[in-house]
Amino acid sequence: MADFALSKQLDSKFDAAVKALPDALAGEGFGILTQVDVQSVFAQKLNAPFRRYRIFGACNPKLAHQALTSNLLAGVMIPCNVILWENDDGTTTAAAVDPVQTSAAKADPAIATLANDVLARLNRVFGLLQ
Amino acid sequence: MADFALSKQLDSKFDAAVKALPDALAGEGFGILTQVDVQSVFAQKLNAPFRRYRIFGACNPKLAHQALTSNLLAGVMIPCNVILWENDDGTTTAAAVDPVQTSAAKADPAIATLANDVLARLNRVFGLLQ
Repeated sequence: MADFALSKQLDSKFDAAVKALPDALAGEGFGILTQVDVQSVFAQKLNAPFRRYRIFGACNPKLAHQALTSNLLAGVMIPCNVILWENDDGTTTAAAVDPVQTSAAKADPAIATLANDVLARLNRVFGLLQ
Repeated sequence: MADFALSKQLDSKFDAAVKALPDALAGEGFGILTQVDVQSVFAQKLNAPFRRYRIFGACNPKLAHQALTSNLLAGVMIPCNVILWENDDGTTTAAAVDPVQTSAAKADPAIATLANDVLARLNRVFGLLQ
């Protein structure tokens, strides 16, 4: 069921993982373009409690430019979601969309080539997260 | 090749489409959580010119809460990307990820059910955009 995502359980506390993520991504050329604090959205919009959960929109501008120059519809998969959530035991899980498994990559060989590059980079980023 | 996305060519100019989108989304319970000005990102990071192109992260909090309560990995597809770009003739194209075609929906029946609901809502939003 998890084919569509990379995930890794980290020993880090949530705040430490949030702090470490930007540098790990930057090493592979990804900036963070967007950030959604899901716990806060659910509290404000639904008055519903939720675990600490953050969705980061990561983007490697060079690869994004190649993708969009090849196919304007590639924007449906930009930026790449990288997620951190707090587990009940105080550890953190990191997850990310697997770009190779997206329907865009399956439909368009040029996007698939770039998606493979992004996946290799995300795997290296996840290797750095502890 | 466009199976992975909804798209519609609009008569609207880009600025008018950007202005109309939030209300059209709000009618189906979506707020806009994130916004990426792709033209500006490419100018700043790559010094590369690009057409006007905006990626909106749309989220229906109630449906997102159901998805994440069912499967924490559902965050790889939240928020839903809705895109506007300026065509060379001054019209605008609107596009969005087809949530039903995502690998997450294909892997998880509970996500698939919610994705069908989101798709129906996005189709109604696209019906409103002119």
